[in-house]
Amino acid sequence: MAPISWALPPEGYGPWELVAYNLVEELVKLGHDVTVFAAAGSKVSAKVVETCPHALSLWPEPERSRPQAHDPKTGLLEGPPDARVLEQLHISQCMERAAGGDFDVVHSHLHVHALMFARLIRCPLVSTLHGSAWVRSAHPALLAFREMPFVSLSDAERQFLPELNYVATVHNGIRLEHFPFEPDKDDYLLFAGRLSPEKGPGVAVEIARRTGRRLLLAGMIEPQYQDYYDTMVKPYIDGKQIEYLGLLSQAELAPYYRKAAAVLFPINWAEPFGLVAVEAQASGTALIATRFGALPEIIREGETGFVVDSVEEAVAAVDKLETISPAACRLNAESRFSAAHMAKGYEGVYQLLAQ
Amino acid sequence: MAPISWALPPEGYGPWELVAYNLVEELVKLGHDVTVFAAAGSKVSAKVVETCPHALSLWPEPERSRPQAHDPKTGLLEGPPDARVLEQLHISQCMERAAGGDFDVVHSHLHVHALMFARLIRCPLVSTLHGSAWVRSAHPALLAFREMPFVSLSDAERQFLPELNYVATVHNGIRLEHFPFEPDKDDYLLFAGRLSPEKGPGVAVEIARRTGRRLLLAGMIEPQYQDYYDTMVKPYIDGKQIEYLGLLSQAELAPYYRKAAAVLFPINWAEPFGLVAVEAQASGTALIATRFGALPEIIREGETGFVVDSVEEAVAAVDKLETISPAACRLNAESRFSAAHMAKGYEGVYQLLAQ
Repeated sequence: MAPISWALPPEGYGPWELVAYNLVEELVKLGHDVTVFAAAGSKVSAKVVETCPHALSLWPEPERSRPQAHDPKTGLLEGPPDARVLEQLHISQCMERAAGGDFDVVHSHLHVHALMFARLIRCPLVSTLHGSAWVRSAHPALLAFREMPFVSLSDAERQFLPELNYVATVHNGIRLEHFPFEPDKDDYLLFAGRLSPEKGPGVAVEIARRTGRRLLLAGMIEPQYQDYYDTMVKPYIDGKQIEYLGLLSQAELAPYYRKAAAVLFPINWAEPFGLVAVEAQASGTALIATRFGALPEIIREGETGFVVDSVEEAVAAVDKLETISPAACRLNAESRFSAAHMAKGYEGVYQLLAQ
Repeated sequence: MAPISWALPPEGYGPWELVAYNLVEELVKLGHDVTVFAAAGSKVSAKVVETCPHALSLWPEPERSRPQAHDPKTGLLEGPPDARVLEQLHISQCMERAAGGDFDVVHSHLHVHALMFARLIRCPLVSTLHGSAWVRSAHPALLAFREMPFVSLSDAERQFLPELNYVATVHNGIRLEHFPFEPDKDDYLLFAGRLSPEKGPGVAVEIARRTGRRLLLAGMIEPQYQDYYDTMVKPYIDGKQIEYLGLLSQAELAPYYRKAAAVLFPINWAEPFGLVAVEAQASGTALIATRFGALPEIIREGETGFVVDSVEEAVAAVDKLETISPAACRLNAESRFSAAHMAKGYEGVYQLLAQ
């Protein structure tokens, strides 16, 4: 069960869908019989059940942005689609099949909402957390089903809710071929990700200003953090030293990873994984990251990047970048963060559960 | 399964909870073995499973209004409770019991969200619509489970979605003893209900101004309709002819019903029922209502009130109020809209389904 915010594979944003897609493609290569429940328009090598007529984030206008109001013509309360209704229908279509005995294992990438069906089906339901336990309001659901099998994206992710029944940590895996190795770097620093406070784009700006390095920023500005962006980032964008590239697709972003002197990952929350971090490593690019969440697990300290505890340490790390070997970065990604490696991890989980 | 926005019985607003409560009390009197799934704090004569630690609308501060934000101290995204999570947990606790064979019938008063479990349990799931089909975005769920048994609150309610499998119309029933009969009336008109455009409080003001009658308004001002209230109602409130009483509890409202010359029900949408209308009738009070939804089913035209098609007809109806017999109004409520009558209706539905 993939999320339905985006069709598979997602073309721009959509990290949960991307991980689900990468996993499915590898499981098919390994010879497994996979059925994917996903939004219409999804293109995968497995069987697809299109549970939702449009991905939620791609719902056609004008319905998508129609304000909710009584329409005297139809007599109905018209409005945009109800994401909860559509997601529950998505879940129930899979769960009815699972209750009928169609599957050996159901693997949910859907926050917590599939859990409520876990005791009503005839096979194990394993959930990849994808950071769900970070959200306090999800805890009642997670704790009510704490004995169900959970997979964490990193060992660090478990700190959000240690009480759950973790059966494995499986790092997210990427398609390495999308991030070709590049040993020769330019001198710019890169920030990629949502331009939201917990991701630290303002800190990235500060590091760039203190080191005098160029900084390119790429990613989505979330409406609720427009003020943050306007205050902490926008005033420093001069189109020369500091530049905002907008929201880029994976394909558009890859060349920027390739030539970056380093990717900055100055988060201030325990991010349970960081796709950007491993995409950068695959490109042969060093990381400079704050000591939060999965980053100390991802970086080989001093070999493929630096884990820092302050802006000062980040500035000092920029001066040591020539000690990082691009080949070591690539090797780190190849040996630990490929889609194939991830699929092997999940294959082990399924075998454990389907016994 | 009651809704969890309010504990049972609701003390102020909470029409779905009120109907569920009235039904449960009568079913117990009829000798049925009833288990109620409801928010904590619910007090009913049946067995209660408290599925949710607080009713959603009564959640304690400060958690209730805490803005969603990352808290560096806990490391979590803190915020208010997630109504969806809590409601799904509420549903799943009932559904796990139903899947285990504990019940003959499950009766849902919960919009559409229990439907997704309907094919996974070992007894029928019957849903009272409570107007859910008025909401276009609920249609995908209703249509996906259209063969399940549905109860409409009025025959009129079926027009929203005629495709469903309606097994009965069961009018909402009230506790008549809460609305004692009063044959002697004052001369004021009363509007009771949410002060929202589809309820027509602005039309009630117009009727009062054209007839020169006093008008009392009681009910909730919804935040999204504050502008409507400020424009269409507030300018006419003078504390003499036209007066706003605020949001009243059922007990506070009953005396106003009792002495009103008529209750105005100038809706412009197909309201599937109208508790206010039958509470007024029980008090021996005439209705003047627009020709929408259930009102033509509720009113005995010319005997217990008037169904009108325009403000002009409403003004004319005010002049004919002395032709309405308070006793006929009371009899209408006693014979058709008591909680006992409603319980008999649902008893028939359960017997049909549990065969």
